[in-house]
Amino acid sequence: MTDLLQTALDPRSVAIVGASDNIHKIGGRPIYYMQKYGFQGSIYPINPNRPEIQGRTAYATLADLPEVPELALVVVSGEQAVRTVEECAARGVKSAVIIASGFGETGEQGKELERHMLGVARGAGMRLYGPNTQGLANFGTGAIAGFSTMFLEVPPMDGPIGIVSQSGGMSAMSYGLLRGRGLGVRHVHATGNEADVTVGELALAVAHDPDVKLLLLYLENIARPELLARAAAVARERDVPIIAIKAGRTAGGQRAASSHTGSLANEDRTVDAFFRHHGIWRVRDPHEQARAAQAYLKGWRPEGRRLVVISNSGASCVMGADAADDVRLPLAELSPATQQAVAAKLPGFATTHNPIDITAALLSNSGLFSDVLPAVASDPAADMFFINIPVAGAGYDVEQFARDTAAFELAAGKPVAVAAWQESVAAAFHAQSVATFPNEGDALGVLAQVADHTALMRRPRAQAGDLAAVELPADAGDGFLNEAQSLELLARHGVPTIGMRLCKSAEEAREAFDAIGGPVVVKACSAEVPHKSEHGLVALDVASREQAGELFTQFWRKMDSMQVARDGVIVAAMHRGQHEFMIGARWDPVFGPVVVVGDGGKYVEALKDCAVLLPPFSAQEVQQALRGLRIAPLLEGVRGDPALDVAALSEMAVAVGNVIAGARGRIASLDLNPVMVGARGKGALVVDALVELGSGAE
Amino acid sequence: MTDLLQTALDPRSVAIVGASDNIHKIGGRPIYYMQKYGFQGSIYPINPNRPEIQGRTAYATLADLPEVPELALVVVSGEQAVRTVEECAARGVKSAVIIASGFGETGEQGKELERHMLGVARGAGMRLYGPNTQGLANFGTGAIAGFSTMFLEVPPMDGPIGIVSQSGGMSAMSYGLLRGRGLGVRHVHATGNEADVTVGELALAVAHDPDVKLLLLYLENIARPELLARAAAVARERDVPIIAIKAGRTAGGQRAASSHTGSLANEDRTVDAFFRHHGIWRVRDPHEQARAAQAYLKGWRPEGRRLVVISNSGASCVMGADAADDVRLPLAELSPATQQAVAAKLPGFATTHNPIDITAALLSNSGLFSDVLPAVASDPAADMFFINIPVAGAGYDVEQFARDTAAFELAAGKPVAVAAWQESVAAAFHAQSVATFPNEGDALGVLAQVADHTALMRRPRAQAGDLAAVELPADAGDGFLNEAQSLELLARHGVPTIGMRLCKSAEEAREAFDAIGGPVVVKACSAEVPHKSEHGLVALDVASREQAGELFTQFWRKMDSMQVARDGVIVAAMHRGQHEFMIGARWDPVFGPVVVVGDGGKYVEALKDCAVLLPPFSAQEVQQALRGLRIAPLLEGVRGDPALDVAALSEMAVAVGNVIAGARGRIASLDLNPVMVGARGKGALVVDALVELGSGAE
Repeated sequence: MTDLLQTALDPRSVAIVGASDNIHKIGGRPIYYMQKYGFQGSIYPINPNRPEIQGRTAYATLADLPEVPELALVVVSGEQAVRTVEECAARGVKSAVIIASGFGETGEQGKELERHMLGVARGAGMRLYGPNTQGLANFGTGAIAGFSTMFLEVPPMDGPIGIVSQSGGMSAMSYGLLRGRGLGVRHVHATGNEADVTVGELALAVAHDPDVKLLLLYLENIARPELLARAAAVARERDVPIIAIKAGRTAGGQRAASSHTGSLANEDRTVDAFFRHHGIWRVRDPHEQARAAQAYLKGWRPEGRRLVVISNSGASCVMGADAADDVRLPLAELSPATQQAVAAKLPGFATTHNPIDITAALLSNSGLFSDVLPAVASDPAADMFFINIPVAGAGYDVEQFARDTAAFELAAGKPVAVAAWQESVAAAFHAQSVATFPNEGDALGVLAQVADHTALMRRPRAQAGDLAAVELPADAGDGFLNEAQSLELLARHGVPTIGMRLCKSAEEAREAFDAIGGPVVVKACSAEVPHKSEHGLVALDVASREQAGELFTQFWRKMDSMQVARDGVIVAAMHRGQHEFMIGARWDPVFGPVVVVGDGGKYVEALKDCAVLLPPFSAQEVQQALRGLRIAPLLEGVRGDPALDVAALSEMAVAVGNVIAGARGRIASLDLNPVMVGARGKGALVVDALVELGSGAE
Repeated sequence: MTDLLQTALDPRSVAIVGASDNIHKIGGRPIYYMQKYGFQGSIYPINPNRPEIQGRTAYATLADLPEVPELALVVVSGEQAVRTVEECAARGVKSAVIIASGFGETGEQGKELERHMLGVARGAGMRLYGPNTQGLANFGTGAIAGFSTMFLEVPPMDGPIGIVSQSGGMSAMSYGLLRGRGLGVRHVHATGNEADVTVGELALAVAHDPDVKLLLLYLENIARPELLARAAAVARERDVPIIAIKAGRTAGGQRAASSHTGSLANEDRTVDAFFRHHGIWRVRDPHEQARAAQAYLKGWRPEGRRLVVISNSGASCVMGADAADDVRLPLAELSPATQQAVAAKLPGFATTHNPIDITAALLSNSGLFSDVLPAVASDPAADMFFINIPVAGAGYDVEQFARDTAAFELAAGKPVAVAAWQESVAAAFHAQSVATFPNEGDALGVLAQVADHTALMRRPRAQAGDLAAVELPADAGDGFLNEAQSLELLARHGVPTIGMRLCKSAEEAREAFDAIGGPVVVKACSAEVPHKSEHGLVALDVASREQAGELFTQFWRKMDSMQVARDGVIVAAMHRGQHEFMIGARWDPVFGPVVVVGDGGKYVEALKDCAVLLPPFSAQEVQQALRGLRIAPLLEGVRGDPALDVAALSEMAVAVGNVIAGARGRIASLDLNPVMVGARGKGALVVDALVELGSGAE
């Protein structure tokens, strides 16, 4: 696959169908760019009305070209674009970039045209980019099959960053923001409607570029997650961080995305889980993407999160400490030796513990920075440093501060971020290649991000292993299994479930009571009544065999009156854990198996205190996810309660993940609620379960 | 009081004790500033070693001056500063600004010196500013009794903004940020250690300045909330918004604040409640403070929150819709007429519903903005507008877009915010006085802020009314009341409480059972056992009179063995509501009465799902606060549950507010948990309560 994309990312020859002599037109700008930015391959303008375009021979049609171009940039629109794609396919072109809009994003007719073009391309082994795209640009080779005005606005410079975006506007904006920070960018690719090639597939190709050290993505939908997952795997292998925007996070955003690129909606919490699973860091917008780029390119991969805050303003020490807490960066406890060394350098009223307030004395003693910084550089308690300079400028030797800071970063070998809002001050630090931000929030946000993202990229990854095939009841079609079948299915796959009997008579119910021992729960069992309690078909704390028998009769009659299948009546042990959790799982049409773990009980839907995980995942990952729940304080035991058996709950979630993944789409959803979790060592037990079968992915 | 501060904010004469000829020194810069920025009063440099300073006659001592200066700026430090304060007091100076640090922020000895200076000043009717302050500056009069280098760095311009800050660094930074945005600033005052005058009192004085339209505060602690409350009242009356930073939000920040200005910690959720109560908008840092300034000065006071998003990029429409959702701004539903009018102006593939994507066609048709904007200006569904321009610059007629936008804002008479990250694009909009931000987050954050803040400033304010005096048991000292006393106290003040009897014998307990009707709750009652259930002294669902009698005997013996006062045994009606809430109240040493309402039950402390309110507040305000709880979805009823009687709960919270406020400190805390809330119309009932008495504010 990557070999094929080669003809798009690094073509030896490019034909521009609809070429223009006017460099301000869409058909003119790519030719101008390629000539200006050193493209070494052949450029073939195609325009039946002109013999020459921008100093190059123009051709009337594709058929007139002296060779088959590797890449065709299709600038003509509508019917003409479709015909050009057909001609390209016939001629043996390997990649076609279709700029025109008015296809899939406008409705079914446009989608049909896209499918037609795709069929033509597939038949000829040609790949399509777009339609409705701004095109592709590789500043490593000068192959610019795109028309963004931003390349005029901000001159390009080749560098270690790749941008792959569904939106042309966002690819241009990211490019501009990065170049504005002085960073070099190699790849700027937009995929538009993604009739064929998606962001994921392009990202996979770009991730293989050995010069790329950072990959920025913009997506409005994720149609083929498996390609994006492979891109992420290649990137992790090469220690290339991926920072992704997935727009359409909200209902309003998804509606807008649908009119923009015809995107289908992805469930947003599943998108979050997908990114986490693959070590991709998600941000909201190109500003967040750009603000962390320098930090990644500096190789910041901190192993800890303990922060030292240094400022020449006491107030900035206070706000720095507050802002650190906002992003959960703990303040490092400096050793007594470090504090003494700092104290020796500072005036009497300064603070030597962390945050370190070097005070306004900096104004009269420009050497304070170089005095104090080495004293803390070697403290092993410090993982990263934040220098906050709210006031400097005239009267301060800012050049010296910047030089001292750069030297300190080199000596410490740890991340050092500076906040300085005054342009002259920031410029001095930028000139020393110190990562400099306009405010605490940005600086500490980036430090926290690189720490968290490093941990995410490097965490041990659960292996899928051999999933046991999931056996379903022989006669199962689609729809719900009854509760007994659901519990049995789970039990067969290693999920601890409540002891129960499915009874067919009052006598069997009484015998079940004797066998299980009271008190018991009595529940009607019918695949046609998935929500029993709403019909009064559940009785808790049943204390006698007689009562069990009576309830059988009562429920049996009720099911009869409801005219539903009477699969039996369940008599089960009455079990109360320390806390009720829930585990859910479903087969997502895009992402496949998805597991949800969280607070259980009646209000699961209303309160939504749960974590989403994509299999395969480890029990350790479940435990970490549970620590992010609102009820997390209860896990360790509060108000005299014992700590909960989180390990057992986590193992259960892993087992449920194996079931949903192993069923490969034949199970549409699993709903285990409540899962009774006991005190540590006492296990977790499913007391009610509902399995819904689906037509499946395979 | 304001009259006195007049001599600090608008002095007719200023003496500088420790004056310097060097304008780069702290004793030189204020003289330089006052001469440069047009101070019309008398300037008296005091320095025994020089006959003349910066062209003005210098005096050896305060006593040598030809008149008593209204303001003395004390630049000398340590012992000398203390002596100068004494001399100022003796001479009849009205205001003294003490620059030196090394006082209260260093420990008890420094605090003692501050108290001494305050005593001297009080005795002479003199007010103190500082110590440990950067001083005061009024650019309306040129009275600059401060030394910030920022006034050199960024030239001042008088304007409608007042800055009052505990930190000199932050006052300078705010000044610089605002001036950098081209906004004029009149007041830049710092209070440092606040030995006497606090931010609140200065804010009160500045709020009276008729030219001030916006007030920015920085606080590290709130020592005298009543002055700040008065400042807020004056500001609301004049429609002057206050935007405040209260640093030391977190434990780490509070430790840092303590070393910075010697501040005592305020409980942060109470600070939030205090600000909300007084219509003050809280932000985290000076950047957030500055970013909204222009919007307020433009007079943006939107009455609704419905937003229209317009962009020339589809992706920016998507991200704009997402970002709007992040700050809870709903997208306005444009009328069919508006959509038709927009459609008539836009190319075929553009989107005419909100968000409106005018597409990259803007590049070829610069008139699209002026075509489309009037079509939406008059739609009554739109309260505010957001124009997102991620790509423009070369090839675009940005000047025209900016002019069209300014004209549109004028025509619409509603807030219009623009996001443009390209400096040249932003500059064009700035030149037209359009509020322009670098990204969606900032633009929409400001729109949401002005909408929310306007609602907060204009909301109907509950009146304190005549609080009934709270009667306490005659023999009550400090410490806990027993449960019966606690419930009776609440019942006397209109709080619905559970029906119960305090029994002194098993027979009384049996009689109580008969009178109340079973099942009942039986609970030991002792002021010395506030947490009964931890000692097994509570029995629920007691179903017979005999059992009630037995439990009496059992609890009576247990209390005996615990050697605690046996106040009796409570027999109470067994009452279960639809949901358990809690109401707490306490007398805060700084803020006075504080009420907390939230989710009840055992895990109140661990899960902290509650809202904080300061009396007086209305039931409507409680209802609004409850809608911010995590359990808010349950209030309206879910999964077949009825809606809850939120009105009754809210009335109860108001009544509890009256009790804690009316007790004027004699009640240290009230803990009502659980409060059983029934279905709508079924009321709310306190079933357990604990009152702790305190030594009181009065």
